[in-house]
Amino acid sequence: MSENPYKRSSREAKKEDTIIKIGDKSLGGGFAVIAGPCAIETEEQIVETAKAVKASGVDFLRGGAFKPRKSPYTFQGLELAGLEMLKVAKVETGLPIVSEITSTKFLDYFERDIDIIQVGEKNMQNFELLKALGETRKPIILKRGKACKIDEWLLSAEYIMDAGNENVILCERGIRTFETAYRNTLDLTGIPIIKKLSHLPVIVDPSHACGSSEFVPALTKAAKSVGADGVMIEVHCNPSEALCDGEQSLTPAEFDELMREIK
Amino acid sequence: MSENPYKRSSREAKKEDTIIKIGDKSLGGGFAVIAGPCAIETEEQIVETAKAVKASGVDFLRGGAFKPRKSPYTFQGLELAGLEMLKVAKVETGLPIVSEITSTKFLDYFERDIDIIQVGEKNMQNFELLKALGETRKPIILKRGKACKIDEWLLSAEYIMDAGNENVILCERGIRTFETAYRNTLDLTGIPIIKKLSHLPVIVDPSHACGSSEFVPALTKAAKSVGADGVMIEVHCNPSEALCDGEQSLTPAEFDELMREIK
Amino acid sequence: MSENPYKRSSREAKKEDTIIKIGDKSLGGGFAVIAGPCAIETEEQIVETAKAVKASGVDFLRGGAFKPRKSPYTFQGLELAGLEMLKVAKVETGLPIVSEITSTKFLDYFERDIDIIQVGEKNMQNFELLKALGETRKPIILKRGKACKIDEWLLSAEYIMDAGNENVILCERGIRTFETAYRNTLDLTGIPIIKKLSHLPVIVDPSHACGSSEFVPALTKAAKSVGADGVMIEVHCNPSEALCDGEQSLTPAEFDELMREIK
Amino acid sequence: MSENPYKRSSREAKKEDTIIKIGDKSLGGGFAVIAGPCAIETEEQIVETAKAVKASGVDFLRGGAFKPRKSPYTFQGLELAGLEMLKVAKVETGLPIVSEITSTKFLDYFERDIDIIQVGEKNMQNFELLKALGETRKPIILKRGKACKIDEWLLSAEYIMDAGNENVILCERGIRTFETAYRNTLDLTGIPIIKKLSHLPVIVDPSHACGSSEFVPALTKAAKSVGADGVMIEVHCNPSEALCDGEQSLTPAEFDELMREIK
Repeated sequence: MSENPYKRSSREAKKEDTIIKIGDKSLGGGFAVIAGPCAIETEEQIVETAKAVKASGVDFLRGGAFKPRKSPYTFQGLELAGLEMLKVAKVETGLPIVSEITSTKFLDYFERDIDIIQVGEKNMQNFELLKALGETRKPIILKRGKACKIDEWLLSAEYIMDAGNENVILCERGIRTFETAYRNTLDLTGIPIIKKLSHLPVIVDPSHACGSSEFVPALTKAAKSVGADGVMIEVHCNPSEALCDGEQSLTPAEFDELMREIK
Repeated sequence: MSENPYKRSSREAKKEDTIIKIGDKSLGGGFAVIAGPCAIETEEQIVETAKAVKASGVDFLRGGAFKPRKSPYTFQGLELAGLEMLKVAKVETGLPIVSEITSTKFLDYFERDIDIIQVGEKNMQNFELLKALGETRKPIILKRGKACKIDEWLLSAEYIMDAGNENVILCERGIRTFETAYRNTLDLTGIPIIKKLSHLPVIVDPSHACGSSEFVPALTKAAKSVGADGVMIEVHCNPSEALCDGEQSLTPAEFDELMREIK
Repeated sequence: MSENPYKRSSREAKKEDTIIKIGDKSLGGGFAVIAGPCAIETEEQIVETAKAVKASGVDFLRGGAFKPRKSPYTFQGLELAGLEMLKVAKVETGLPIVSEITSTKFLDYFERDIDIIQVGEKNMQNFELLKALGETRKPIILKRGKACKIDEWLLSAEYIMDAGNENVILCERGIRTFETAYRNTLDLTGIPIIKKLSHLPVIVDPSHACGSSEFVPALTKAAKSVGADGVMIEVHCNPSEALCDGEQSLTPAEFDELMREIK
Repeated sequence: MSENPYKRSSREAKKEDTIIKIGDKSLGGGFAVIAGPCAIETEEQIVETAKAVKASGVDFLRGGAFKPRKSPYTFQGLELAGLEMLKVAKVETGLPIVSEITSTKFLDYFERDIDIIQVGEKNMQNFELLKALGETRKPIILKRGKACKIDEWLLSAEYIMDAGNENVILCERGIRTFETAYRNTLDLTGIPIIKKLSHLPVIVDPSHACGSSEFVPALTKAAKSVGADGVMIEVHCNPSEALCDGEQSLTPAEFDELMREIK
């Protein structure tokens, strides 16, 4: 009733789908594929992976340099050195790059060098970070907090948009439920609901949701079926030796097969 | 580790997919469509709906006569009179019929006249009912309890199988989570997991899961994408006047369009 | 809005607290303690436990004969033979007895010999069972389904009451959440909410909720603090050899200490 | 198995309970009461409330100046001006003051002027904030994220402790579940579990958990029963006109009555 709480993200605010252009690629208005390793480990690793996913027809390269791990005693990412490696991969392949930010401290660096900035699920309601990202004009991938309602997710997008940045891409990555047979419950019902409420692009991260590479292809196809604007998929050249989340990473060969299937 | 707890339903017990034949139709080994109204209201209503869904190419007709409603003060179904109407619809169309049982009291009737017996989510752990159904040879659709784990769901199937009836079809219909933007969260990740663990057919009920007809087509396609063996969809000739769950029922025209899309 | 959906259980229907008399004991209007083993195993076991809990001042003896276990391959209870043993314990101690029913098949037996009939959480929405219990005048302990809302729980009580039996006692036993550090999340907030909405007695089962005997005393005291009308506690003379749920059972000595503390 | 993941917060790391001294008050080793308004609104409001709660025997004064609201279009707090008003209330009453931080930007200010710094549930996994707080020596109240497991909560405490600050107080404030009869489900079972695993003080916020002032007294007593080291309670001189969360605030008179009951 009364006023629509989603002043900028709602269909009332803007009827047509938002399409965000990044170079000659775009998010929204098609089915985009973002792929790459959970964590950047070495220049060789990220460049090799970038070349492989490019050969399979990927649109964007992802690689994590700042890893918000639940324990301080686990690998935290290579930080700025990792971002430098990601930039090398961009130069080598021409792919636009996506990486997660965890603090405003390095915002200048991200703003200058990273094509799409990702906000992880743990920071979906870190409003100070969202407001700072709202002052840039960078495309922002806003992941849904694992216990956040669709309503709250859109309101977090409003924080970025209200601060001046309309380039928000929503990313569903699984919600926390009682089920323990997999990591999180991918909320595919949420996709058509968001598409009805909002003009923003919505993508899906099946890798983090299920936590197991063998179910990623099925969930990717389902994401496309429900109308998502793309997926973000973890790919690692050697999953069994990954420093982070190897069990959910596809090999380049598995990724290539999936790309053939969804095209 | 140790012994597989799913003695009869697991892939270890039987490698190949179970295919359950009902007349010239089957569940398992293809993508079957079950459709019909949530509740049988009149003979005219069920016969008209049956003819409509048959014209669209449905495989099985569903209709509820015993409705386990959360309040005793709401419509509880036409009970045996409803089953009689469903039988008329079967005679008129030749479609095999599916209906929900809520008590062993009418088991003889169901065993004689109903082609597939459904156990609703509220009775998934009503083990006395499951054991009684295990003594028949009827195909049993076992819906997942809205707060039951995949593990518990398979163990409920074991109750039926251990009592002698191997003809069990699992049906995912949404789990209870914190999200309130729709009714229940459809657990599509669970489908490939079940298919890996078990040889039993698994179908999906998108109508009860989301509670809103407009999202049923997207979820039906997603169910097919993740490898489900079919769907159960609510169709009503006049949803706005349905006695039960009208808002989640497709019209025959909407259903027809969906059938064209998924074939 | 509009009409109160809880026609018989609400405070609108009856202002004052319901107090259910069983012999010289009562449920409601005080803090009652029900205790005993999860499962009856032998006559010696139940009689010995009964004497122990009586010596500590318990009000009612519980013992399970029909055990709705999630797997058909685990101990299912001694059934009628178990109830006979429970009756011996009643004769030996004078304690009124509580036991769980899982099917209408043995209702006559329960109605004749058992003082308080328990409906387990898995059967909270087994409406056929509730309706049958509504035709008796026995006190019924209705456990909350682990994924059922307070609203649904009261409506299940309405099924019993609407069928003619006003003697319903509600029992909170933990709800299913994402937390895995214990078995279920005991919903103590629900107690004052229920007491506000309804005139029915409400008790708490801390043993099944947390699944670990060491936390039972703290939760028992908390249940009393929030205004519960009693608790149901598992006590076993030899928890490490219990056939069912030993890890959550207090020894008689631990139970005795708890009884001293809460009095 | 293997190494304890809670290197600094566990009972293995330190056997005896941690007691954090703040002036002549302490957190841990007793039952402390923190009270005050959700949001600081005017100097008059916070001073008046401070005097009232002091008269009732409170240990610490709380007042929010930075409010992480889910929508950017709602009242966000008075920020630094609010903290200045809180300092006046401290001068007037001598009560140590507690306030929430949402960004490292104002850390110097908090470090100089605020006695206990609170991290809200939305920032429980904002690790950059936690690491910065770890570099101070201020007592930190770390609220549990509403969808975070006990395991994750302790690991967030480790972020602060590993960075050098051992003065962490855990605060349970309700977890997100399917129940909608109240705001969040207060996890009182978690209290004795935390006390067993960790030497850190644990307090409870019943106001935010249930979202309704009438249930706060019962939950406060229950928190004490399960062994919590204190509570944080919202008190407002005029709840019906509060800018934020008025419905969960006690009046000074209600608070006074509660203080008498728990002492």
